[in-house]
Amino acid sequence: MEEKQPESRGKPIRCRAAICRKAGEPLQIEEVEVAAPKAWEVRIKIICTSLCYSDVTFWKMEVPPAIFPRIFGHEAVGIVESVGENVKEVKEGDTVIPTLVTECQDCSDCNSKKSNKCSKFPFKVSSSLPRDGTTRFTDSKGEEIYHFIHVSSFSEYTVVDIINVTKIDPSIPPNRACLIGCAISTGVGAAWKTANVEEGSTVAIFGLGAIGLAVAEGARLRGASKIIGLDLNPNKFEIGKKFGVTDFVNPSNCGNKPVHEVIAEMTDGGADYCFECVGNVSVVNQAYASCRKGWGKTIVLGIHKPGSEVSFSSYEVVHSGKVIMGSMFGDVKPKTDIPRFVKSYMDKELRLDEFVTHEVQFEDINKAFDLLLGGKSIRCVIWMEKRNPPIKITNKE
Amino acid sequence: MEEKQPESRGKPIRCRAAICRKAGEPLQIEEVEVAAPKAWEVRIKIICTSLCYSDVTFWKMEVPPAIFPRIFGHEAVGIVESVGENVKEVKEGDTVIPTLVTECQDCSDCNSKKSNKCSKFPFKVSSSLPRDGTTRFTDSKGEEIYHFIHVSSFSEYTVVDIINVTKIDPSIPPNRACLIGCAISTGVGAAWKTANVEEGSTVAIFGLGAIGLAVAEGARLRGASKIIGLDLNPNKFEIGKKFGVTDFVNPSNCGNKPVHEVIAEMTDGGADYCFECVGNVSVVNQAYASCRKGWGKTIVLGIHKPGSEVSFSSYEVVHSGKVIMGSMFGDVKPKTDIPRFVKSYMDKELRLDEFVTHEVQFEDINKAFDLLLGGKSIRCVIWMEKRNPPIKITNKE
Repeated sequence: MEEKQPESRGKPIRCRAAICRKAGEPLQIEEVEVAAPKAWEVRIKIICTSLCYSDVTFWKMEVPPAIFPRIFGHEAVGIVESVGENVKEVKEGDTVIPTLVTECQDCSDCNSKKSNKCSKFPFKVSSSLPRDGTTRFTDSKGEEIYHFIHVSSFSEYTVVDIINVTKIDPSIPPNRACLIGCAISTGVGAAWKTANVEEGSTVAIFGLGAIGLAVAEGARLRGASKIIGLDLNPNKFEIGKKFGVTDFVNPSNCGNKPVHEVIAEMTDGGADYCFECVGNVSVVNQAYASCRKGWGKTIVLGIHKPGSEVSFSSYEVVHSGKVIMGSMFGDVKPKTDIPRFVKSYMDKELRLDEFVTHEVQFEDINKAFDLLLGGKSIRCVIWMEKRNPPIKITNKE
Repeated sequence: MEEKQPESRGKPIRCRAAICRKAGEPLQIEEVEVAAPKAWEVRIKIICTSLCYSDVTFWKMEVPPAIFPRIFGHEAVGIVESVGENVKEVKEGDTVIPTLVTECQDCSDCNSKKSNKCSKFPFKVSSSLPRDGTTRFTDSKGEEIYHFIHVSSFSEYTVVDIINVTKIDPSIPPNRACLIGCAISTGVGAAWKTANVEEGSTVAIFGLGAIGLAVAEGARLRGASKIIGLDLNPNKFEIGKKFGVTDFVNPSNCGNKPVHEVIAEMTDGGADYCFECVGNVSVVNQAYASCRKGWGKTIVLGIHKPGSEVSFSSYEVVHSGKVIMGSMFGDVKPKTDIPRFVKSYMDKELRLDEFVTHEVQFEDINKAFDLLLGGKSIRCVIWMEKRNPPIKITNKE
């Protein structure tokens, strides 16, 4: 559809998108109409997108904030096809990463180094529609299709607000760049920005999915002396080693010993930083108990069941000196930090290649779901354009 | 008993102490025998001591960790009467502040700038006996009397481990110095060391007792632009102003509006730092809700009912960017930080005079309890030595 670029400006584009019509049902590749970008909006031709567990979580979800029909996908890279009024920051042909996190660059949060929680356009997990409250997607019957967390990258074209778009160096391979759109920002950001992991420190990571592995990668680059990975899947140690995991604990193999005692024995009485990357409140308490008294930080990254509460002993909170904090998108400010991650990869510091265990073509997108649900993939990259010869499902592990 | 100093060395001293024999009963001034200091110990002649709410909490408490008969008191200043073997850090005649917090200066915590939680001699609230596990106090019938959190300053003489003793500049008036032994370290330390309050920031303090006021004083000295005091007692605003409280909220006068909304309206969507100084888990949640998203810190200082839990919405923890931390003794390392507080007072920066609302002689110690329980005093200083003319209950308010 390259030839459409000059002519398509200001007009709707008809293209393929993977639509989820009902919770948990396979996505259907259908023709959709993607409206022209309105003011402040950017229409992006997606090059590739990877499947993140948050897509799966919302794909499975049957009750609000779930909403259908919807186009999932939020970890992607693409090329600007056209821009709406008032957009000066990017132009046609720029390589960009769309992000779920907004950065208006104008509010007190965006102007503070401490926050990535834009006040003017706060992150909303529910409908995630553009700022005028209408969708840019319609199906062949004219029915409106919902956006997903401001990105909706499981479509050949998508429309994203400029506050959710970061321009990047186009020389980074797209099947690496897409990862920065969520997993890398979330995990490496949690280690660098939320926790501020120090050289020589000890780290425990509860859950070695892509986010946990990205936390390890962030801790490795900061020079942590010990990076303990915890996972029920023993295969995770091998892949963990690629990102600096030095020690592995399978919580189901600890016998009668509580996990926090095992961690305490492996460290000076507890890890300096404990990251919860599972999405389970009891794991938050394990992480907290595994923290070093005096200064240990528990960083919660997992997405928990709606309505969940985390509880801590009041005495422990006052007397232990441990800190509890959460991390949303790694406290990363997309427009500032994403170009740094890209540079770090291009400078051969940040490891991204090892995250991509599988690659598929767009028409095989449901296979990406099977691989992630089966615990087989870390990241499966989905290529939007038909390639010649076509990509078969590739497993790089 | 000045003349005892040279002769008393190595021998027991008989003197007066206020003993609590049963939870909630008035203290009884009795003659006790205070054993000579053993190795690593210091016998201190208490000059004056102030009554802290923690004394009252443990005086009321009927179940463990409460233990009786016991000598309370832990906010004091005194003169070294004699020292045991191995004590080189202080000598007879030195002015010292005994503290509940230990600093062995040898373990990984004491050697870290981040922690005041000595690993070698951890703080124990229960028996608080010297390191050999025996008491230094016996009553006239030879019965052993328990220590209180390593200090027991409601006695003319007490024996304290050198790891709980800080030498100070003797020129500071004793009825000011004693306050640094707990309230000032706890409150000012929470603002300076735990929260690290920044210039121009907004602060909300839940509970304007001595600790809350000391937090305000710490925030004032850091140049906070707005210091909101919250208390059910409307009289607390006047005293609060002396320590930099700029605004006052009485939670019982907020009508249907939740306290956190009132705070949000007074600040840019929430205070940068919220301190819970009440000792109530629901106030912890009010404080957390009153914090600015993106970077707000909730600092828990209150002593809660044994077994209490604090709970937070998991979604909030991950998505708000707010941090939850506790503060024990203001993260103050006594031997390093207490001399700094003394100097700050002597340099006319740190305000201490305004905390002392009442002064009594030792024999009137139960009146100090009445004043604090009645919400009448901030700090009542108890002078150990009979003065001529004797001090009547003085109210400086």
